[in-house]
Amino acid sequence: MSTTTRAWHLASRPQGMPTPDTFSLREVALPDLADGWIRVENRWLSVDPYMRGRMNDVRSYVPPFEVGAPLEGGAVGTVVESRSPHFQPGDTVFHMLGWREAAVGPAEKFNKVPGLAVEPQQWLGNLGLTGATAYFGLLHTAEAREGDVVFVSAAAGAVGSAVVQIAKAKGMTVIGSAGGAEKCAWVRELGADAAIDYKAEPVLQALMRAAPKGIDVYFDNVGGEHLDAAFATARNNARFAICGMIDAYNSGTPQAFRYIMRMIAARIMVKGFIYTDYLPKMADFYRDMGGWIAGGQVRSRETVREGLEAMPEAFLDLFRGANMGKMLIRV
Amino acid sequence: MSTTTRAWHLASRPQGMPTPDTFSLREVALPDLADGWIRVENRWLSVDPYMRGRMNDVRSYVPPFEVGAPLEGGAVGTVVESRSPHFQPGDTVFHMLGWREAAVGPAEKFNKVPGLAVEPQQWLGNLGLTGATAYFGLLHTAEAREGDVVFVSAAAGAVGSAVVQIAKAKGMTVIGSAGGAEKCAWVRELGADAAIDYKAEPVLQALMRAAPKGIDVYFDNVGGEHLDAAFATARNNARFAICGMIDAYNSGTPQAFRYIMRMIAARIMVKGFIYTDYLPKMADFYRDMGGWIAGGQVRSRETVREGLEAMPEAFLDLFRGANMGKMLIRV
Repeated sequence: MSTTTRAWHLASRPQGMPTPDTFSLREVALPDLADGWIRVENRWLSVDPYMRGRMNDVRSYVPPFEVGAPLEGGAVGTVVESRSPHFQPGDTVFHMLGWREAAVGPAEKFNKVPGLAVEPQQWLGNLGLTGATAYFGLLHTAEAREGDVVFVSAAAGAVGSAVVQIAKAKGMTVIGSAGGAEKCAWVRELGADAAIDYKAEPVLQALMRAAPKGIDVYFDNVGGEHLDAAFATARNNARFAICGMIDAYNSGTPQAFRYIMRMIAARIMVKGFIYTDYLPKMADFYRDMGGWIAGGQVRSRETVREGLEAMPEAFLDLFRGANMGKMLIRV
Repeated sequence: MSTTTRAWHLASRPQGMPTPDTFSLREVALPDLADGWIRVENRWLSVDPYMRGRMNDVRSYVPPFEVGAPLEGGAVGTVVESRSPHFQPGDTVFHMLGWREAAVGPAEKFNKVPGLAVEPQQWLGNLGLTGATAYFGLLHTAEAREGDVVFVSAAAGAVGSAVVQIAKAKGMTVIGSAGGAEKCAWVRELGADAAIDYKAEPVLQALMRAAPKGIDVYFDNVGGEHLDAAFATARNNARFAICGMIDAYNSGTPQAFRYIMRMIAARIMVKGFIYTDYLPKMADFYRDMGGWIAGGQVRSRETVREGLEAMPEAFLDLFRGANMGKMLIRV
């Protein structure tokens, strides 16, 4: 029984900010199930800033999206048909065939979610790429420890809000930055010791007030002015985990730093990372994060848009700062 | 018997490039020797780019020079009078009371040089701050290993030329950059696999040609365009040791980077350091560097200026790129 599904394709490579012309919603054929294959109806689609990088034609840690081909991304769905002994109809699975309504493929492309009592979209959020990125970046790349003063940008975003809560669960002092009073209020609600509204005053000025003795750790989601403020205020032997530089994803403009030279005197360590670097430690992550979620120390907030049609606009809204917490599509 | 000596003082804090008004040569009184003190006649004075940082009024890893007070810096001299049981007239000592002809002080401010058959000024160069900076930055901060492709800027300078030779002694591939054909010829003579003349063409273009598969390590002495070219060409898990950013020492202009976002995809680690971070490992340094010098694997070249009067101009010449190898004053 061959069928079709609707899937967003990359229509053209964006120069700068993507536009409606970047995306095209097309009907694609789904092949019959081969032996060992399953068919999944997607329920939740993950909308993440890193996807912008895959729209450029550059070699990176994942291959670029191809023009004319379907886009990909994290998704949670329900198995509706199985020719694999490992899956049964009704199973909830996590997989990377997002940006579409249904997916068909060999069983090894899909992961059954662990048996925890959480809402399924959590496997895209605090128990998925988002939470793992926050956890490994903060605790492993930046080696943040109890007592450290941690600065995190985009603290009302999906990854940033997880960083705030993990840092508090681990006994750190946390300063989060976000755009606007509403987001800052939520960052404080998550437990941050201080929230900086970067739209209200220069980041550096606010950070110097919030951390008069300087910062030990910076978790960078944005680059640019935030990263420069972190250089300016870093204490000796500070560590920066570079997770994202959303300020630069759609801009060809070089980023300028006035304080980068402080790296030498303060012996600052700066390192880029991807959470998959830490896959061998995922059991630690599930244990800790599962415990924090169960104990109420890590909460999630979602910005949910309804229906596959809404996905390109939801993606663009990430760069407009329109989301609080994790941006998701409910299919 | 109280006497005097001539010493360069900081007359005023420079804005941007220092000028003759920055320095003032004054007669200062040398106190009589207290018990445990010695008197030293300086023979060689070290002229180093890092001294520029101490002329600014900012907290750093060493306190700023004070306006109206004598400048300081590395020096090698001969003990001429001693009231300490640890020193005898004729001993060669290394100390930090440079920028002057004679120095008096408690014995603990002076270090007798180890008994190696080297010229005394080597204790300011390859066996001193210069060599230790190259050794620890390359092998410890950047964790460079046999087989790595190493890029080093200011490769005809004091630290850079030591980095080139240490890297070759350790079996690495080395690309050095320097300004002009004469310096580049010397960099190749030191054993570099390739030399880049940054005055002849854009650094990035030359580096991509010299290292078509990218670089594993960057030893940064200059910042700016060189650092950006290193971001652009870094292989996965590349390590950058940030030793100096001479491009920025006299400039208030922010440094701009087009390729810094590659830190994430390539998991680049960038770290600032000062050689004193590694003082517990100095025995390793003396053993290795002593062996390389004895074996002819590490050679030194000096740009020598005669007489204390020449020191400010020699210092300014560092920023004009007028030196090959170590800049020294022979008193």
